[in-house]
Amino acid sequence: MNAALTPFTTEDYRARMELAVHSAVAEGLDGLLITPGPDMLWLTGYTPTAITERLTLLVLSAEEEPRMLVPTLERPDLESAEGSDALAISDWRDGQDPYDVASALLRPDGTYAVSDSAWAMHLLGLQSRLADARYFSITERLPMLRAVKDANELARLEAAGAAADATFGEIVTVRFAGRKETEVAADLARLLREFGHEQVDFTIVGSGPNGANPHHEAGDRTIAEGDVVVLDFGGLMHGYGSDTTRTVCVGEPTAEMREVHDIVRSAQQAAFEAVRPGIACQEVDRVARRVITDAGYGDAFIHRTGHGIGVTTHEPPYMVEGEERPTVPGMCFSIEPGIYLAGRFGVRIEDIVTVTKDGGRRLNNTDRGLAIVE
Amino acid sequence: MNAALTPFTTEDYRARMELAVHSAVAEGLDGLLITPGPDMLWLTGYTPTAITERLTLLVLSAEEEPRMLVPTLERPDLESAEGSDALAISDWRDGQDPYDVASALLRPDGTYAVSDSAWAMHLLGLQSRLADARYFSITERLPMLRAVKDANELARLEAAGAAADATFGEIVTVRFAGRKETEVAADLARLLREFGHEQVDFTIVGSGPNGANPHHEAGDRTIAEGDVVVLDFGGLMHGYGSDTTRTVCVGEPTAEMREVHDIVRSAQQAAFEAVRPGIACQEVDRVARRVITDAGYGDAFIHRTGHGIGVTTHEPPYMVEGEERPTVPGMCFSIEPGIYLAGRFGVRIEDIVTVTKDGGRRLNNTDRGLAIVE
Repeated sequence: MNAALTPFTTEDYRARMELAVHSAVAEGLDGLLITPGPDMLWLTGYTPTAITERLTLLVLSAEEEPRMLVPTLERPDLESAEGSDALAISDWRDGQDPYDVASALLRPDGTYAVSDSAWAMHLLGLQSRLADARYFSITERLPMLRAVKDANELARLEAAGAAADATFGEIVTVRFAGRKETEVAADLARLLREFGHEQVDFTIVGSGPNGANPHHEAGDRTIAEGDVVVLDFGGLMHGYGSDTTRTVCVGEPTAEMREVHDIVRSAQQAAFEAVRPGIACQEVDRVARRVITDAGYGDAFIHRTGHGIGVTTHEPPYMVEGEERPTVPGMCFSIEPGIYLAGRFGVRIEDIVTVTKDGGRRLNNTDRGLAIVE
Repeated sequence: MNAALTPFTTEDYRARMELAVHSAVAEGLDGLLITPGPDMLWLTGYTPTAITERLTLLVLSAEEEPRMLVPTLERPDLESAEGSDALAISDWRDGQDPYDVASALLRPDGTYAVSDSAWAMHLLGLQSRLADARYFSITERLPMLRAVKDANELARLEAAGAAADATFGEIVTVRFAGRKETEVAADLARLLREFGHEQVDFTIVGSGPNGANPHHEAGDRTIAEGDVVVLDFGGLMHGYGSDTTRTVCVGEPTAEMREVHDIVRSAQQAAFEAVRPGIACQEVDRVARRVITDAGYGDAFIHRTGHGIGVTTHEPPYMVEGEERPTVPGMCFSIEPGIYLAGRFGVRIEDIVTVTKDGGRRLNNTDRGLAIVE
C-alpha cells in the first residue's frame, strides 16, 4: 500500500454515513434504507457472509443514530466487523417477522431512499407494513452518493488500474493462436491475481465473431491466426475495481480491422478529452458516439460509453444518453466505446478515467494501439 | 448421470412456466414478473452472465406467451440459451427507459408476483410507471412454486447428497489437529469438486468457540486436540444443491460434548421421523426444538430447523415457527438443529430430506455419530 492507501477507519464510515444523511435530507428525504451490497460495504465496512432471504437493514436518518438490524445469528459477525463501533445494533430471530421489527425503526410517513439491489421481497414487506411511507431507489434520488472518490479510494483505484496495465503488458506476450479463449482467460485471471487483485470478476476473451457480442465471456473457440480478439478484464484490489479493455490481432490485421480499430481509438480519445468538471455525463457518450457515427458505424456501437467504478465495477455515474448530471472532480468511470460487426469481429477500447479540476486523468496507461500477438 | 438425470428440455421449461401461470391465476394474480436468479433459471434455463443494473424481465401471464425482455447487448446470449425456444423475446437499448418498455408488456391494473430477489430499483421503476398495478413477493403468494421436485430434479439432489456423503467419508481421514480451519475448508472444497460438484458454495469449519457462531465460515484459528468442529459444506452438482453438516471431535470428547451431541442427534432424528405428507412445516421445527428445550438447551438453538433446497441452497419451504403450510411429497429441505455454547463450542447435524408418501427419506446417509478425528 502506498502512503494514501491506508485502512478505512470507523471515522471514515461515520463520515460517509453523515454525508449520506445530509444528501438525503437535501433531497427532501427522511433517510436511507440500505441492504447488503456495495452501499452497505461503503457506508459501514460490513458485508454479511452471504446475501440471503434473511433481512439485514441499515437505517440512516437525521433523527437517530445509524442502526443496523441483523438476523440474531449474524450479530456476532457484525460486532466483529470494522466500522461496527459507529453503529447501534438490533437483531431479529428466526420466527419473528423482520418487517414488523424493521418498520418499528422507521417513520410511518417517512420518505426513504432504498438500495438499488435490495430484494423486492424486503421492499414489499416494508411497503405492506408502512403503506404511508414512500420509497425511492438510490439511483433515482441519490445516484451520486458513492460517485466522488476521496484520496484513499482513488489510491486504490489507481493501484487496481496499474495492476490491470501490468496484466495487459504480460498477456500480449503469451500465445493466442491455437489456444482456446478459456485458456487465455485463465492467463488473465492468473495475472490479475499475481499483480495484486484479491478478486477476479471477469476475463472476457472475444475472438473473431465472438468479439462482436460485447457480453461474450470466454468460450471453447480456438483462437486462429488473423483473429481480432477483445480482452476485457478486471476485478477488485484493496476492495476497489479495475476494468480495462484492449483489442489485439493475432498476426497481421486487414485494412478493415485497422480502420475499425482506429475509429474506436479516436472515439475513445475524443471522449477522454471531453472530460472536464461540469460536463454532462451524456455529453461524454455523445462525443464518442459522434466519432463512430460520422465514420459510418453508428449502428454497430450498441451500448453506452461508460459506467462508474468503485467498490463495484458497475455503478453511477453512467455515461449514457439521458444522464444530464454533471461530472465532478473525484468521479471515476470507464470510457469504452466499441464497434461490433455481427458474425465477424468486434473492437472495444476501455480505460478508467478520473475527473480532475483540469480535465480527465486516465488510470490505465498501456498503449491503445492495435497490438499484434502470436 | 443416471437414467432419470437427463438434460432439461424446452418442454420442461414450457411446463414449468405453465405451472407458474396456473398457480398465479389460482392465487388471484394476473401473472409473474421474474428477474435473473433461481426462479428465472428454473423457469427458463437462462441466467445472464452477471446480474447487473440493466433490467432483464420474464413476464408470465395467462393471456400472452412467455416473454423475456433483455438488454439489447445480452440478446445473443439469451437466443443461444437452452429453453429460449419457449420464449418470445423483446429487447431495450442503453439510453431507453427499460421501465417504460417493460410496463408496456403489463396490464396497468394487473396483480403480479415478483421474484424475491428482484432489485428494488426495478420494482420501484415499475411501480412508478404502473401505479395501479399491484405487486407481491413470490414468497408471500407463491412460495411453493419450486418446492416440489420432479424425478429429474430429485435425481440431481440425490447425486449431490451422495457426493457430499463421499466428501464427509474422506474428510474424517485428514488431519485436523495443528491445521488451520481454512486448510480443512480447502480440503472440503477440493473433495466436493472431486466427487462431482461444479460449484462449491460454502465450507464452514467452526472449531472450538468458532463453532458456537452458526454463521462462522472458516478462519485462521488453528484446530487443537480436544476441539469440537462443526463441518457444514455444500454447493451445486448438475445445477442442484447439497448442504450437509456433521460435527466431529479432535481426539476424545468430554462427557458434556457427548451429551450435547446426543441431544442434537436426537432432535434431528425426531424431526426426521415427524416428516410425512400434510404435516405443517413449523411442526418439524417444533419437534426438533422440543427435544432440545426439554434437555435444557432451548436458548442455545438460535435458528430455524431447516430450509428448502433446489437450484439454490436456501429456498422455501422453511421449517420455522409460523410456517403453517403443509409438506407435500417431492419437497426437499434440510433438517439441521444445533446447540451453540458461546465461547466454547457448537454442535449441528444436518441432512437433506425429501418427503415421500410414506414419510421422510434422507438424501444424506453418512453416520450421524460424533466422529473422532486426529
